[in-house]
Amino acid sequence: MHIGPLKVKLQLFCGDAVAMGPGKADLLDVIAREQSIKGAARALGMSYRRTWLLVDEMNRCFHERLVETLSGGGRERGARLTECGRTVLSAYRALEAEVGVVGDGTAYRALVQVMLDQPKPARTAVIEAED
Amino acid sequence: MHIGPLKVKLQLFCGDAVAMGPGKADLLDVIAREQSIKGAARALGMSYRRTWLLVDEMNRCFHERLVETLSGGGRERGARLTECGRTVLSAYRALEAEVGVVGDGTAYRALVQVMLDQPKPARTAVIEAED
Repeated sequence: MHIGPLKVKLQLFCGDAVAMGPGKADLLDVIAREQSIKGAARALGMSYRRTWLLVDEMNRCFHERLVETLSGGGRERGARLTECGRTVLSAYRALEAEVGVVGDGTAYRALVQVMLDQPKPARTAVIEAED
Repeated sequence: MHIGPLKVKLQLFCGDAVAMGPGKADLLDVIAREQSIKGAARALGMSYRRTWLLVDEMNRCFHERLVETLSGGGRERGARLTECGRTVLSAYRALEAEVGVVGDGTAYRALVQVMLDQPKPARTAVIEAED
């Protein structure tokens, strides 16, 4: 998430696994839209294998799975977010929104105020001896 | 920065350069303590070259440099934070503290409530065909 020049990365860890983060939240958004893991993979330019593994990792980090696949023979094929999946996604987006208010705060303004738009050029590659 | 299972990374970008982030803030802390770039490099287990380059990158991102080196012949050798450096460091820490309050919020609690402490074991590596 970007707040002006500030990049904020929120990752929820379940042991060593990332249960939810920017990429997984975007993936949930796309699965909800595409109603299919294959469609989400295509939309995100990722392999089906990688996409499936990300979904599987998320699913294993919560009491209930976030994405359920529908393998029946009728029209109900593909994937969709469970109620838990929708809850987690909206809570993650709410968390981002809560963090986003720092952009209105004094600390953020103090930093941005003294920062340049672009770094000054590096001097010729001489590392100064110090002490 | 960690808030329970939530990892928060705050990076302030100046163009493509990271003007301030977790590693650079820690480096400023250590330089303030060691009063020397060489001492900070030693304390952090980094090469002097890498440490100097990080300092140089920070210095070039702000209207005034954050760290000044003292190369005089007397007791005043080493490095120290400038007033701008102290301002930037304390504003960055304040920003972290502001973000930290999300740990008391409903979104954070909603996420943690449905998450497991450890992921469920992965099934034998079979990727389910979906559609």
